[in-house]
Parts: sequence; C-alpha cells; structure tokens
Amino acid sequence: MIKKKFFINGIARTIVAKPEDNLANVLRAQLGMTGTKIGCGQGQCGACSVIVNDELVRSCITSMNRVPDDARITTVEGIGTPDNLHPVQQALVTHGAPQCGYCMPGFVVSSKVLLDDNPNPTGAETRAWFQTHRNACRCNGYKPIVDAVMDAAKVLRGEMPQDELEFKMPADGRIWGSAYPRPSAVAKVSGTIDYGADLGLKLPPGSLHMALAQAEVSHANIRSIDTAEAESMPGVYKVITHKDVQGKNRITGLITFATNKGDGWDRPILCDEKVFQYGDALAIVCADTEEHARAAAAKVKVDLEVLPAYMSAPAAMAEDAIEIHPGTPNVYFEQNIAKGEDTDPIMAAATHTVEDEFYLQRQPHLTIEPDVGLAYYDEEGRLTIHSKSIGIHLHHAMIAPGLGVEPDKLRLIQNPAGGTFGYKFSPTMEALLGVACMATGRPVTLRYNYFQHITYTGKRSPFFVRLKFGADADGKLLAMESDWTVDHGPYSEFGDLLTLRGAQYMGAGYDIPAIRGVGRTVCTNHIWGSAFRAYGSPQAFLASESLMDELAEKMGVDPLELRYKNVYRAAATTPTGQTPDAWSFPEMIDLLRPRYQAALEKAQKESTANVKKGVGVSLGIYGCGLDGPDSSEVWVELTKDGVTLGVSWEDHGQGADMGALGTAHEALRPLSLAPESIKLVMNDTGVTPNSGPSGGSRQQVVTGNAIVNGCQQLVAAMKKTDGSFRTYDEMVAEGIAIRYAGKYTASMASACDENAQGSPFSVYMYGLFMAEVAVEVATGKTKIEKYTAVADVGRINNKLVVDGQMYGGIAQGIGLALSEDCEDLTKHRTMVSCGLPYAEDIPDDIELLYVESPRENGPFGAAGVGECPLTASHVAVINAIKNATGVRITHLPALPEKVLAGLKAL
Amino acid sequence: MIKKKFFINGIARTIVAKPEDNLANVLRAQLGMTGTKIGCGQGQCGACSVIVNDELVRSCITSMNRVPDDARITTVEGIGTPDNLHPVQQALVTHGAPQCGYCMPGFVVSSKVLLDDNPNPTGAETRAWFQTHRNACRCNGYKPIVDAVMDAAKVLRGEMPQDELEFKMPADGRIWGSAYPRPSAVAKVSGTIDYGADLGLKLPPGSLHMALAQAEVSHANIRSIDTAEAESMPGVYKVITHKDVQGKNRITGLITFATNKGDGWDRPILCDEKVFQYGDALAIVCADTEEHARAAAAKVKVDLEVLPAYMSAPAAMAEDAIEIHPGTPNVYFEQNIAKGEDTDPIMAAATHTVEDEFYLQRQPHLTIEPDVGLAYYDEEGRLTIHSKSIGIHLHHAMIAPGLGVEPDKLRLIQNPAGGTFGYKFSPTMEALLGVACMATGRPVTLRYNYFQHITYTGKRSPFFVRLKFGADADGKLLAMESDWTVDHGPYSEFGDLLTLRGAQYMGAGYDIPAIRGVGRTVCTNHIWGSAFRAYGSPQAFLASESLMDELAEKMGVDPLELRYKNVYRAAATTPTGQTPDAWSFPEMIDLLRPRYQAALEKAQKESTANVKKGVGVSLGIYGCGLDGPDSSEVWVELTKDGVTLGVSWEDHGQGADMGALGTAHEALRPLSLAPESIKLVMNDTGVTPNSGPSGGSRQQVVTGNAIVNGCQQLVAAMKKTDGSFRTYDEMVAEGIAIRYAGKYTASMASACDENAQGSPFSVYMYGLFMAEVAVEVATGKTKIEKYTAVADVGRINNKLVVDGQMYGGIAQGIGLALSEDCEDLTKHRTMVSCGLPYAEDIPDDIELLYVESPRENGPFGAAGVGECPLTASHVAVINAIKNATGVRITHLPALPEKVLAGLKAL
Repeated sequence: MIKKKFFINGIARTIVAKPEDNLANVLRAQLGMTGTKIGCGQGQCGACSVIVNDELVRSCITSMNRVPDDARITTVEGIGTPDNLHPVQQALVTHGAPQCGYCMPGFVVSSKVLLDDNPNPTGAETRAWFQTHRNACRCNGYKPIVDAVMDAAKVLRGEMPQDELEFKMPADGRIWGSAYPRPSAVAKVSGTIDYGADLGLKLPPGSLHMALAQAEVSHANIRSIDTAEAESMPGVYKVITHKDVQGKNRITGLITFATNKGDGWDRPILCDEKVFQYGDALAIVCADTEEHARAAAAKVKVDLEVLPAYMSAPAAMAEDAIEIHPGTPNVYFEQNIAKGEDTDPIMAAATHTVEDEFYLQRQPHLTIEPDVGLAYYDEEGRLTIHSKSIGIHLHHAMIAPGLGVEPDKLRLIQNPAGGTFGYKFSPTMEALLGVACMATGRPVTLRYNYFQHITYTGKRSPFFVRLKFGADADGKLLAMESDWTVDHGPYSEFGDLLTLRGAQYMGAGYDIPAIRGVGRTVCTNHIWGSAFRAYGSPQAFLASESLMDELAEKMGVDPLELRYKNVYRAAATTPTGQTPDAWSFPEMIDLLRPRYQAALEKAQKESTANVKKGVGVSLGIYGCGLDGPDSSEVWVELTKDGVTLGVSWEDHGQGADMGALGTAHEALRPLSLAPESIKLVMNDTGVTPNSGPSGGSRQQVVTGNAIVNGCQQLVAAMKKTDGSFRTYDEMVAEGIAIRYAGKYTASMASACDENAQGSPFSVYMYGLFMAEVAVEVATGKTKIEKYTAVADVGRINNKLVVDGQMYGGIAQGIGLALSEDCEDLTKHRTMVSCGLPYAEDIPDDIELLYVESPRENGPFGAAGVGECPLTASHVAVINAIKNATGVRITHLPALPEKVLAGLKAL
Repeated sequence: MIKKKFFINGIARTIVAKPEDNLANVLRAQLGMTGTKIGCGQGQCGACSVIVNDELVRSCITSMNRVPDDARITTVEGIGTPDNLHPVQQALVTHGAPQCGYCMPGFVVSSKVLLDDNPNPTGAETRAWFQTHRNACRCNGYKPIVDAVMDAAKVLRGEMPQDELEFKMPADGRIWGSAYPRPSAVAKVSGTIDYGADLGLKLPPGSLHMALAQAEVSHANIRSIDTAEAESMPGVYKVITHKDVQGKNRITGLITFATNKGDGWDRPILCDEKVFQYGDALAIVCADTEEHARAAAAKVKVDLEVLPAYMSAPAAMAEDAIEIHPGTPNVYFEQNIAKGEDTDPIMAAATHTVEDEFYLQRQPHLTIEPDVGLAYYDEEGRLTIHSKSIGIHLHHAMIAPGLGVEPDKLRLIQNPAGGTFGYKFSPTMEALLGVACMATGRPVTLRYNYFQHITYTGKRSPFFVRLKFGADADGKLLAMESDWTVDHGPYSEFGDLLTLRGAQYMGAGYDIPAIRGVGRTVCTNHIWGSAFRAYGSPQAFLASESLMDELAEKMGVDPLELRYKNVYRAAATTPTGQTPDAWSFPEMIDLLRPRYQAALEKAQKESTANVKKGVGVSLGIYGCGLDGPDSSEVWVELTKDGVTLGVSWEDHGQGADMGALGTAHEALRPLSLAPESIKLVMNDTGVTPNSGPSGGSRQQVVTGNAIVNGCQQLVAAMKKTDGSFRTYDEMVAEGIAIRYAGKYTASMASACDENAQGSPFSVYMYGLFMAEVAVEVATGKTKIEKYTAVADVGRINNKLVVDGQMYGGIAQGIGLALSEDCEDLTKHRTMVSCGLPYAEDIPDDIELLYVESPRENGPFGAAGVGECPLTASHVAVINAIKNATGVRITHLPALPEKVLAGLKAL
C-alpha cells in the first residue's frame, strides 16, 4: 500500500491505496466519488478524465504510484454542483448534450482544462482537443458538446451572462415542442446520477462481486468443469456452475414464429453441454472484491471437446456443417415476401434492371458504459435484478423459467443506463445476476470490462443481401427481387423478427407494386444478434438505397430525382402492402434539393487530384412499434403535490424521462401544472406496469398514447361542472379515484403474414440524408465534411431530445459506413479497434431540417425518432464516396484500404 | 434489502440497503458520505445528526425502513463546503469551536435546523435545543458553539455580513497571540476531514474488518480458546489468537522505575494464560465486513477458570488476595515524599491541623469518537499502523517487541483524532491491528463500539488519599502529611509515574516547608489506568484543595484569603523542592477577588430554602513536560513554495496544528511568510522525528522550543550579509543546506529522587478557579451558574486554542465533580450513564482571565495550557457545594443522591 495526501477538489485527503491500482478506481471505490466514470478502462473514452496538477489525465490508466504526493486533483464533483453549475455544465444542459450522460463528466472536466488553457477556442480546436484527449461520446454526435463549449467560453469570457443559457419557461406554460432540458440532464453533467457500477459500489457491505469464467473458444462440447482451485482462491465465497441453476437454465426469446424450426430455448444461462460462442459463461465466481473474483475465475478449469466454429452465415450453411444446436438446422427460419404480381415477367419486361450484392457488417454498439448489473432479495423476498434492461417486463418473462423463480418473486429494475442503442433489448447478464444471488443469498454485482462488453453482449447481425430492381424507362420502380441471409449468432431470440425486418424495409420509401424475395436466419458461432437502433433497416437500406443509386447511374439520372419520382405519395403502399401514415418525402426532397444542388456544385469545384469530393443521398424509414397491435400500460395518480406517472419507459439515453414528462405535461395541461410537479416513477416491474420495451421507437407513440389516456381519465375525473378542477383533498373527500390506469393498443396495426404482408406499424418515421465527403486519394480515407438530414418524425415533443437523437444516429451511421466492425475477435477488442468515431470523425456542420406532419396515431401528432437517423444515414456516405471517386463499396465498412483498392481497380 | 429513493443534499439517489441498518451507516459505508460521524452509536452524542424532511434526526438510531421513500435528507456536506461555508460553520471556526472536531458536523446540522425553526434564539434556548437533541461536545464546553450560533443567527437575519466573522490578518502579519483559526478548522466544520473510521471505510477493496472476542469476566485463567465455529462463520477470513503473535505478545511501558517490583511486561496483546480485566482481547476475527467479524467473534469459545476479581485497590491489597500477575505483588510500587524537616513534631506543635480522606473516581474520557485504527504494509514493506496514538514514537517502542517486528519495519501514524484527553497515551488497539495485519497480509481496520470504547481503553486511575495539614495561627502552612493509594488496574505502564504525580501535586501552589508521605500503586482487575488530562493532579488537588477549605473553615477565615497567604511567592518551593518558574498566584487572586466577593454576596442574596447557592475556589498547577530533561526533535525545510515543518506533535483535538504553525510562523517572522506558506507534515514515524508524546502539555514548551531552534537555524542560513534572505534557488545554487534538525532538551529539569525531590518540569502552568453553584435542596442536584477561571499559561500562542482548552477543561472538571464515573461495569456502559455533561450542564457564563507571565524556558514565553483547567476545577465546585449547603463531598462524583444524603445528615 502507499499512503499519499492529495487535495481533491480542494479538500486534503489521506489515501491508502495499492500502488498499481488506478486513480479512477480509488476515487470511485475508496472515496465514493462516482462522478468520475469508468468506460473502456483503457484510456480510449475519457469518461474517467480528471485534472491532476492542472493537467488533464485519464484516471483509469493513471496508476496511483504515478500520482505525486500533494497532488491537486479535480473531479467533476469539484467543477460544479447541481445547484451551482459551471458554465460548461449549464451549456451542455442547454444544448441537450447529455443523453445517456455517461461521457458527460469526462467532457466537463476536459472542457474545463481546454477553456483554462484556451479561453477562445474554435470549434475545430475544440474537436481537436477532444480527439487528442480521447473524449468519446456515442450518443450525441459531438456537435451539441462543441456548441456548448463555445457558449460556455462566452460566459467565461464575460460576453454572456450564464443565466442566458438557462431554459426560459414559455409564457403559455407549455413545454411540448420546446427545448426544455430533460429531467436527468443536470444530474448527468454534474456526475451525480448513479449508473449501475456506481450503485454496485454503493451496495451494503458484504455484497459480493461476480466474475465470469468464460469460454475462450467459439464452439465446443463440455466434458467437465472443475472449480476446485477457484474455490480455494482468496476472498472467494462461492463458485457457481450450471448445476446450481434452479430452473431450466435457458433464456427464451418468448415469441418464436410458428415457422421457426427452433423452439427458442437455445441460450443457456451457464453453459452445461456446449459452448456456443466465444465468451459463453461457464461459471460464476462470487468473491469479496472484483479483483479476487476475476483472479479466481481464471482458475476455473474446463475440459472441452472443441468443435468447428462457424463464424459466418455461409460457413454455418455449408453442406458439411454440423448443427450448432443439435436437432435444429443451422438455417432455422425463412421469411418470404410476396407483394403484388409475380416479379419474373415484370423484370423481364423492365426497361432498366439493376442488381447487386451487399454485406452489412457486425456493428458493435460501443456504449461508453460497459454492461453492468446487480441483484438482491428485496424486502418482500423478491429476487430483484437491476440492469441496463430496456425491456424489464419482457426480460422478466424471458429469464424467470430459466432461473426457476415464480414470476411474482422476480423483480426487474432498470438502472440509469450509459447507452444501449438496443443491445439491452436482449437480456445480457440479468440471468447470471439472478443465479448468483439465488446461490449465495447475498447482494451481488457484476461489471464487464470492455473486452467482455464487446465480446459477450449482442451485436447487430450481419446481412448478406442480393437485391434487384426493375424500372420502366422513366425510372419508375416496377418490381423488386430480394434474397437475404442473416447471421444471427448462436441464440435465436428475435432472429426471426429481425429477418422479417429485411422484408419490411428493403425498398421501403418507394411505391413498388411487385416484390418477391426470401430471407433466412442462420445460426452461427459468432456473437449473438441483438437489437441495434433501427434494427434490420440499415442492412435493408444498404441494399435498396445503394441499388437506387446504381439504377440512377445506369439510367444517367440524378439519384435524388429518381427517388423523388418513386417515393410514397397518396395511394402508395409499403413493401408489406400497408398505406403509409404520411407522404412527406416529396416535401422533404423539395427542402433538400437546393442544398443538394449547392453541395454537388461545391464538391465539383473543390475536388482535386488528391482529394475527391462528392455528395450522396439516401432515404430511410422505420416503424414505431412492435409488429402488430402493440400495447402499453401506465398509471397516473393525483397526489398532494401534483401528479405521479408510473411507466416502464426504459431509457437507453434517448430521453425516456423527457418523453414521458413532455407527453404527460401536455396531456395534463388543463391542470396548469408546472413540469416539476409531475413526478416520474419509472422502470421497476415491482412498481411500474408493462409499458412494453424501449425498442422500435415505440414508446413515444404507444406508451405516449397510454400516458395521454391515463392523464385524460384523471383530468376528466377532476373536472367540476363549472369547468374548474377538484383538488387532491376534494377528490379524496368525494371518494373519487385518484389513480388511473392509462392503456393503449395500436389496434389499427396487424402482424405480417407468411408473405410479409400486413400493416405492422401504426406510425412510421421518415428520414432523408445527404452526406458530403472528401476522399483522400492516396489513402482512401473518407472524411465527412457536412451532413444534412431532413426528418419527419411527426410533431416534436422535445426539440433537444429529437435533435440529439438525430445527431447521434447520424454519427453512428457515419461510423457504420466508414469504420465500425466487430468481426475479428483477435482484433476488434477495444473501442478504437472497433472503429468508434471520435470528435474529428464527425463533422461540425450537421444540418437538421424537420417536416412535422402530425400523425393521426401518435400522441399529439408525434412519431418516434430514435431509429430514424440510423436507418440509412450510412448509405448516403457510401453513395457519396461513389459520387466522389467512382468507387462503390458494397461490403461495409468502407475502410480506407477498401476504398483505396477500389480506386486502384478503377 | 430495501430500495428507496432519497434526495440527499438535493441529489436524487437510489439506495439499496438492509432495512434494519441505520441511516448513518448507509450514508457513510455505502455512499462514502463520511461527513456524518458515528460517535456513541446509541443516539446519545448527536455526531450523526442529519435532517430528514426538515426534522433533525440522529441517523445512527434511524433504521432504513423508517426513512420514507423520497425523503429529503441533508447532511453536513449539503450545508456548506470548505469554500462556501454556511454562516454557522464560519461562526464555529471564528469562535474556535472545532477542537477535535468530531462533534462539529452534528452541531452544524443541528444548528441549521434550530435556526430554520427559530431565527433568533437565546443562548438558553440554544443550549436547550442541544440538550434535547443530545448534541454532545467533549472538547469545548459548549460555550464557543453557543456563541457561534448567536453570531450565525445575526448573519442569517441580515444583521451582520458573513465576512465580518472571517479572521482578519493583523497589519504586522503576526499570528502569534491572535485568534487565527487552526488549519484544520474548516475541514472539521465542513465534515471533510477523515478520522480513523472514515479512513477505514476508504481503504482498498478487500481490506479486512476486525472484531475482538473479549473476556466477559475480570479475572481468570485461560484453559483453552476454541475458534472452530468462528472460522466457519460467513465472511470470515481468519481467526487469530495469541498463537499467531510472532513476538513477545506483551506491551511494555518502557521506562519502569528502579523500585518497581514488576518488570513492566505485564500486558498481553492477546491473552494467553490469563484474563486480567473485563474486555481483555482473546481473539481477533478478520472478515469481509464488520458485521460478519462481530458475529464470528461472538462464536469464539473460551474455557476459563474464573478467579476472584479485585475491582478496587483495597480489594487487591487484602491479605488473602492472590497475585494478579503471579510473581509480582499487587502493591508493586511505592513512592515516598520527604521535603524539609520531619513533620511529626511540626504537626504536634501546629496551631491548626486538619485531616481528611478523599476518593477521586475512575473518570472516563468519553471522547465522542470511539477508538479506531487501521493497518497495512506500506510500499517499503513496513507494518504501518494508523491510530489515535498521541505518542507515535513512544508506542512504536512499546509494541514492536510484542509484535516481533524490527523497529525499522514498523511505522506508526496518527489519524485525525476525535478527542483523546490522554487515553491514547497508552497504546490501545495498535498492537491488535499489527497482529491482524501480520497474520493476514491484508489491510485491516478495527473500530470499537462505544461499550468497547468505555470498557477496553484506559481510564483515570482512582486515588484513595489521606491528607493532613498543619498551620500556624495565621494559617500559614507548616507541614503536610500524605498517604495515597492508586488503583491502576491490571497493567503497570506509567503506574509508577502516576503515583509520583501524587507527590508532585498534593499541596502544590503553596510554600509548604515540610512534607512526609507515601503513595502506592496497586494492581487490580478494573479497567487499566491510562493518562487523562492533568494526569494525577485532579486526584492530588481534590485532597489538598478540599483540605485547604476545611482548614479555612476550621480557622473561620476566608478560603481565598487563606490561599492568598500561602501561595508561591519568591523563595517558595514546590512540594518537590523546585523553585517555581512564575509567581503569578497573588496577581491572579487579586484579579479574582472582586469577582469572588461579588459572587459570595450574590449567592447569599439569592439563596432560598429550596435552592442553596454558594461559591467555591481552588487552585491548580501542572508541569509542562515529561519528568526530567525532556527532549524533542523536528525538522524544518525550505521549499520552493515556503517552509515545511516536520513534527510529531500529536493532536488530541487540542490544536497541535495551530500550536506548531503559530510557533513556526513566529520563529520564521524574519522571512515574512504567510501562514499558508508553512506546510505541516505531522505525526508519522516514517517521516517525522521523535518530538515526544503529546502528554503533560509538553509540546508547546518542549517541541515549541525545538521548532524555534530549527527555524532559527534555517533563517540564519538564509540570511545574507546585507540582512536580506536567500531564496530557495539561491540556497540550492550556493549549496547551502535547506533542511535543519531542530532540537531541544529541557536540561534545566531533573528527575525526582526516591523522596520525590527534584525539578521535574522546566515550565509550569497555574490556574485559579471559582465556581458559583445552586443546589436544589429537594434533590441534591447541583447546577453551575457561573464559572470563572484565571490562568497563567505564559504568553499565549493562539487565543482560540487557549480559550478552547480552558472552556473544555472546565467542563470536564464540572463533570468530574458532579457526574462522571466508570466504576460499575453493569451500569457505566454509555455516555449518559457515565455522566457526560451536556449543554445545559455547563454554564453559559464562563469568564476567563489571563495573567501572561512570560516563561523563560518557554518558546516566546509560552507555557502549555491543556492540563491547567482540569487540575483543580472540580474542587472549586466541591468547595462551592460545601459553601452553599454545608455538605462536603470527599468521594467524587457529587451525585445528587450523595449531596442529598449529606443534607439529610446535617
């Protein structure tokens, strides 16, 4: 141990610590200063940034013996407090920068040092600073942060009073449609919100730390697991294997399509007979510290019969491939699409046909917060599991049988989540936490390191697509033929649904009268497929929006105008035969057109022999809801102090609190409540009803409608005959109910049939994307110079949330297009190697335009927004590279070497 | 577990906790909010005060299931911060209220609620509030706190700007003699200083919690210790017994007088053959949590042969008493005093003789912080023990052989201590911490609960005294005969020295030409005797200052005037034959006399049949130093930023930091340094030299002189021929040493001989005390209405420190007189039952007067102060009771029932 004295946020502290431990751990685990976050743990994300003697350092890679005695250390807690925010913090709130918020303390600290050093930085200097200091954000595309730093600098230079940055309540008291900051924003920028790892550190003394013994091969039969040595390691309380699991030891995807050849019970909690993928959990060690647990987990010995690993769909489909799940074929589900007339004769007769093959890679979610959770028995004896779950009621049902717990004895709670982007639509560690808590009877906590987070949580499933368009002489699409293969990894949950998404979104946006195609779900040994923002659609639109450009090129017409000709207008139907809920594309294209033409002109003018510039467009669509008649339930209760809303609207970071508050506030407007009088009780199956999962941008629409329903019931009950409203006391005195269940079912929607025909979503969102790129000829490296998006997401509930979702989704689209991948387990092991975009990878110049078509089926006309910007934003980049260089990348990501090879092959 | 959401200092926090755990533990151990302190753990001290939904609560007795969901909780951290103090905090600093500081967070929180409820309280209302809410302080006698609340209220009412409370640097830049707040004051009022339990909570994960298996009898032979069941308890890492101790398993008092019949190696670290007192440590359990450790400790089984327990000196001296330490008689040391002529003929010839017997009880220290410590191996492999030790170098030598550690492999560090008042002059848990760390190799921490703190740390040793005065017709003392018996408990450390103190202080203050007497140290099975402020003198002065009043009464003269006649004047000698270093008593009595006469008059006027009022006086003296030529060493080093002082000046709470800073600042005045440019490095045997222990008020004198010596060397080395001073860079460039060892030895002092004759102390302090009491005739209950003290403690270094020491010592004297005891192990188990004075027990009206005789042997004329107010302040109360009621209490404490019995017997 070393003993040192530091001045932490001005306070003298004596610290006794292991010399090799890092400063982040010491601040967090020893001093309880959890404002400093640990993201990657490898100095690649900056969430742990602190100031040591005026220098910005990443505390997760700063070992204690390198921190000098008497060091002055400043953490986010020392920069500002919730009631006394630093200008940087206030500006971040004002600009809606905090989404999941996990990176915010790091950005606050980093910005503080930047502005101490340079009181008047440019946006480019600010981005360069964040790039150099590895401050990574996965939610907001950096722009709101850079804009906030510019404003904070003004305040610090005395050019603007800080209170000018504060939200001003509109005169009419309406926050719907405003830039009201989300309720959690201040806690996020001040480092005072407790994420899962923070709560884990704050469990009662004697709580156990878990570590997993994991498979280091991708496919094997298990002969035996030997835990003896692990059990004898220091600090170990218990080593748990599948034998300790009281239930079926399987996680189920619940709803498996009738034609699915598997039964959906294919994912073990703790492996018993087989290892299905790298990282599969073989045993859990529970110990007094995480370090002890990990050391012991390394001593669990497994005797394996290693089997051939099928690391892609083609490999698993090979003739000689064995069944990964014996008894179930590796190709376990097929989804047809058949709309309109047979396409064979149409294609044969079409003036123009175009056909190509595409591959969208295994995109990693790269949340800054790695997966984390905790479990304990609550005061009613319920096994209570806290996690990042974005579907607490869904996961409740998915894991209860495997654990062997009666449903009423299981309670799931979502912690504040440092980003999910969909990976938490799958249970990850929930069942492991449950098993460990049941086996030990003690509170337990589990935290993945970033490598585990990458390798042992679901990823976006790669699609191999072959697509063909037939068009008439004018370019009007007549028919589409598709074939797509989904590598879903070893676990089937929602794999059939994802395959259906291919049918729903390939060619979406265009009125194509005839479609034929088939998709298939393939079991492989690569990382299992989980939801990822815009689930299934980036794969679909890579094909159809690339092919649209190929058709335009073949015809020699402008790709935007070709789209304009084909987009949904009245009487159009979607690929599933549904009538769209809005026909905004013509208006959206009209909005974009002058910008597009100017961009083309600029690109042409600025292109040189060394740097080729180009412009690409794409459109994207996503449905708001689960397939079919999606439902949600909430409760609304009048209290002495206002109204309490109970809702399971899980938060990825997208702004569930703001969505719920904005909707409820609007629905309760007759009561003239201040927003802070509406209390949110959220995301706890013990308290909040089943509002459905936070996936498919469904919550604003489906749960939003349920909130409106509940609020309206309450308002009606409170209303007196004279038009005024009863108080709480009057309601109680008159014996009128004060609590109402708000319910909604999207009964106008219907599930798709075996030919993928139906009206699966009650509301859709529409996006139109334009990327302006510069490709360095010598290296093939693509830089995005500007990005423009036009979105119709209905009436906007909250401007900050919607802008933030758009910025962040576009940034992920850029990453998807250019750098992100998680294919090679020997290489894709870190944020950097997985291609996370940093500040300089995302342009400062992002322009957002909205067409606000009110949606009939959305609350107050709103649609969802989260998926919209990632449906097809990557394809605009791909199309722009083609426009700039003549190189079409069909297999993503468009890494420099791939573009370079294309350039050389021209 | 329960999960609740609280708003803690305005921040929403989700808490998972055991329903039966208390809020204080959860705040501290789970949230790392260690500003809230745990003192008694029983709701009797208020150190844990927090605000829950606007109500003041003691969080240590507030179970989590009683804290409502959504509760608004405010802790000291939420009231003010070091750079933004709340007016209450600023006022407490200004008034010097924080001494040990352990109670301060509780008072800050309590005062906040008081002033929220009542913006204009009177002093009496403030005391009543603290009384009701059980806010206890053991250091400062409450007056500085009440005064601070009055000032804070003014600020809060807008009648005074807060900055008026801030210390203003004098124009001459001199802080010596000023009311400069001690360096630790702000940290103490803001709850940001980490005491031992706080540091224990902040050790690295995997550190072990210790619990002791302790004897529940007071005397026994040990047949066997069975740890098997304890070892199998949850969370247990190791159970340690004497067999695991690598060294001699004994603690030694080091210096044992030549005539001591014991060898001083009588105190086991972990009992092996015998139990010597209740609470003796039999085994240590090291576990993952304190709760687990305690549960397992309860399962250690001991097979004992119970022996007769000798719970007082007379019992242990009985004919049939067996030897507690076989081979050493229970009366193991005798100290004679023989000054001047034989007293027999003088007594026979004396006009007046008076004789009486007295008993001073086993006074408990009742620090608000219970004993606590931690240990680990440092980066150099040294066994490093943090404790409340006020003698780190002393204890280093006392425990190293017992542990079996080479001296250079042992390092002792003092934590900020929440009060010691001397009990930490003995090692308490240091060796236990060392044994546990050596046996486990892990960091360990041990925290006594308050019952353990009372029963298993040393107490003031009771004295049984018989004293006789002979005086001439004028009342001039001619001779004194004394006999005293010291119940020192089972462990001999410093017992002989304490017995010598009886010789040194009985009759001190008066020029008595002839003295004969003998004292003896007795081994018993009651709690071992340790140092307690004014060590030995309250026992001595109870006898001589009571007897002085008895003589005055017998002569029919005024007791103050009788003292005036006898006090030291030029040519007088002390009982040890030393010439006093100051003759201030006549001047001090002259100062007191008008106040005394007015008080007598007032008492007479206000006495009624129901309430008898009276006035009592006493004087007290204490030496500054260890017996004989006491030494100290420090180092002083020039740095780039100023000067660093390294010193082992341990802090009880008395203000070691201020003492060191004030002295160094004065000595360095030629350099014109700001106080904050002097850095203090304190109390770590690994870094700071042997400055001697913080006992006997020696540090200001002995270490103060060493500081002056070191500083003067540095200043001389820096001085250029032109009278200006070299900078750090110039010193380095010229190759002049920048670091100097400051040394001092009080060579003018000499140890006492076998007749207690010598000049043991180079400097003395002098106190004169006057109590005004009101005794309720119906109950015998005594209330102190006013207290006046005149002190000569030499030149005053720091006004706040000296006033604070005086107030606090007087409060302890009042407690000693009226309520405090620790005799009955079945009854004296808590702060309340041990008689701790609360706010209403100590008068608001305490008047302090100083005579500042510069001391030749003190640095800049200073003497010590800490012991002065507890030498004889209790006797003034006893004499006042006699004056009021005619009842003389000779056996303390003067409990109401004792006074009542006396009244009835009149």
